[in-house]
Amino acid sequence: MALINENYLKLKAGYLFPEIGRRVREFQKNNPEAKVIKMGIGDVTLPLSPSIVKAFHEAVDEMSKKDTFKGYGPEQGYKFLREAIAVNEYQKRGINIKADEIYISDGSKCDTGNILEIFGNDNIIAVQDPVYPVYVDSSVMGGRTGVLGEDGYYENLIYMPCTAANGFIPQLPKQKVDIIFLCYPNNPTGTTLTRKELKKWVDYALSNKSVILYDAAYEAYISNPEIPHSIFEIEGAREVAIEFRSFSKTAGFTGTRCAYSVLPENLVAYTHEGEAKSLHSLWLRRHTTKFNGVSYPVQRAGAAMYSPEGRKEIKEIIAYYLENAHIMRESLMKIGFQVFGGVNAPYVWVTTGKGIKSWNLFDKILHEAHVVGTPGSGFGPSGEGYFRFSAFASRENVLQAMQRLEKLKL
Amino acid sequence: MALINENYLKLKAGYLFPEIGRRVREFQKNNPEAKVIKMGIGDVTLPLSPSIVKAFHEAVDEMSKKDTFKGYGPEQGYKFLREAIAVNEYQKRGINIKADEIYISDGSKCDTGNILEIFGNDNIIAVQDPVYPVYVDSSVMGGRTGVLGEDGYYENLIYMPCTAANGFIPQLPKQKVDIIFLCYPNNPTGTTLTRKELKKWVDYALSNKSVILYDAAYEAYISNPEIPHSIFEIEGAREVAIEFRSFSKTAGFTGTRCAYSVLPENLVAYTHEGEAKSLHSLWLRRHTTKFNGVSYPVQRAGAAMYSPEGRKEIKEIIAYYLENAHIMRESLMKIGFQVFGGVNAPYVWVTTGKGIKSWNLFDKILHEAHVVGTPGSGFGPSGEGYFRFSAFASRENVLQAMQRLEKLKL
Repeated sequence: MALINENYLKLKAGYLFPEIGRRVREFQKNNPEAKVIKMGIGDVTLPLSPSIVKAFHEAVDEMSKKDTFKGYGPEQGYKFLREAIAVNEYQKRGINIKADEIYISDGSKCDTGNILEIFGNDNIIAVQDPVYPVYVDSSVMGGRTGVLGEDGYYENLIYMPCTAANGFIPQLPKQKVDIIFLCYPNNPTGTTLTRKELKKWVDYALSNKSVILYDAAYEAYISNPEIPHSIFEIEGAREVAIEFRSFSKTAGFTGTRCAYSVLPENLVAYTHEGEAKSLHSLWLRRHTTKFNGVSYPVQRAGAAMYSPEGRKEIKEIIAYYLENAHIMRESLMKIGFQVFGGVNAPYVWVTTGKGIKSWNLFDKILHEAHVVGTPGSGFGPSGEGYFRFSAFASRENVLQAMQRLEKLKL
Repeated sequence: MALINENYLKLKAGYLFPEIGRRVREFQKNNPEAKVIKMGIGDVTLPLSPSIVKAFHEAVDEMSKKDTFKGYGPEQGYKFLREAIAVNEYQKRGINIKADEIYISDGSKCDTGNILEIFGNDNIIAVQDPVYPVYVDSSVMGGRTGVLGEDGYYENLIYMPCTAANGFIPQLPKQKVDIIFLCYPNNPTGTTLTRKELKKWVDYALSNKSVILYDAAYEAYISNPEIPHSIFEIEGAREVAIEFRSFSKTAGFTGTRCAYSVLPENLVAYTHEGEAKSLHSLWLRRHTTKFNGVSYPVQRAGAAMYSPEGRKEIKEIIAYYLENAHIMRESLMKIGFQVFGGVNAPYVWVTTGKGIKSWNLFDKILHEAHVVGTPGSGFGPSGEGYFRFSAFASRENVLQAMQRLEKLKL
């Protein structure tokens, strides 16, 4: 008798974003005239930039000719892309990361979900609360947690609250943890950590032989020079951290699909007997066995963002979304929300107001202003009382959404 | 202390294809003049066909304009592609499969590796021997096997030998098994099963509440009308089978990346208490949580193979590779090899000759004829004494490789 993975039965019904989609579809079905503005999912809206489109087309042309056709590429990604990333994202900032330490993938969602496979099941995992749901759900599916309590917390998973009360800065856990998910600039709160704060985590991991899974998908939105772009700016991080980056929010690749993870060669975890093993080698084995590389034209398209033209175009796109965030911050403050994030991140995080549940605010805003946001509680218990707006909409939509919200009685 | 997944330490050193790559690179380094012909990895060589290229370009253009730009798509794939597959691959053949039962992914290697995640760890898994290594290695990494014995077999994994002695037809296992990997047309042997033979497996699975993981990546190469293209041609299969298909070998997508798996709605597996659960729902949860869909332009490119022009082009490509296989069969027989497969499959499987180890034949052919094949033992212990040639090379290379082999003293 074939048995299912019963860990799936522990999962909360409905992943956050499909649930939002369901409610929006239902509303639109009943209100076909309503022009709904989506600021829920962190999905970009500006088209691919000209340099990227040009490289994409050229690579498709290569695929159309016998002499330049590409079959299977290296699973880890083509050298041209790994080199471009190593040089432009790391070495130019003085960060010691080599091309061989970079693994190209089809998405950070996949990477942050799949990475747990190379770790044993008896690690204690810590997550921020609120948190990008994939870290938690992947941990649950992989049997790394207990059951979901009525308080919304999974047993055996360590939650680190990040709320206005602590300035959204997670405290070092009181009990020892082995694997720590950190996301900066943070999704959903839009907040960041200083080098000094991040160093605390690297030092903790070094002392405890823990591994930090550092999701830097929104790194391109950092405008303050005091904020680290990479965990590898911190001394010692090469021994204890994996970094995840994506072209999704940087170059508008949410529908094009390309990302990467960085596993330094000297990063290790341990056997039960305490023998150190290279995580770089384990991930190489996982990646080559269970993955077949990213589409060649997509890799070429991604590499184009590092051309001089591409860099300029990308910079303008990021500035556009950050200006959206700025407009949103101003409006939302005027409306009376307490506002966080949105300066070094494309997310604006607001308080729902006294006693207002975040799903109630979601429904109210959807039904009365026809604007979709994301209820904070969808990101974890400490997200209750908060609400996320994404700055990835078009300028017109941002302005209109803010106008509609200003008219709303909240 | 972060612990590694120690199951990885059970793996044989080096995945088969990287090992072949290593030996070839070393040979080429020492013999830079040698023109090596690759018939090892099953990688296509003909370029993408004109209809596919056209659709690919058009979709890239859509991504370049604000009004037609696509961000995140549905994780399961776009409706247009799922519909095209359901109609063309299944419904037109009278097979009852709906678009909603099809999950688009970036590769069958990923799908056949990842699918085990929705099954409990205490299932007994059966594989053919020889076998596509991903099924075995994913099982090992997932902790579903014991250690590797000196005989080349992993403990707790049931091997079903497929050799000339049994006409490459696996026998029903003597002990009960819960999950059965079957691959037809078979990689590596190039052999097929009749409907009657396949029905035995469906009946076995129905009686034992087992699940068949049916890899039909080479289905497009079936030319004999007696051979089933899909396991869903067999009555009852909707309750017990998952089918994997790919655009890789059909439409030349090894470097473009698109595949799909089919999970019928009435397919179930069980909790320990014997409660039936929908595998379709579990995979939906896995797919939406840990995957973000296939690149939009790639999905458009894939769908183009179902246009009238696309179908014609694909048919010609398949015919070209099958003619290669025919030429290879004739030559290899003339040389004195005992030859199997290569009629309804792009692989020709030969015996190495009495007492000759398959890696020795690999080295001999590489060093003396500058031709790369795949040693049968790389696919499992019962592959020892066999050797695989892939028919995906260009016609010129196939002819030249056969000439070189004919001159060789074997």
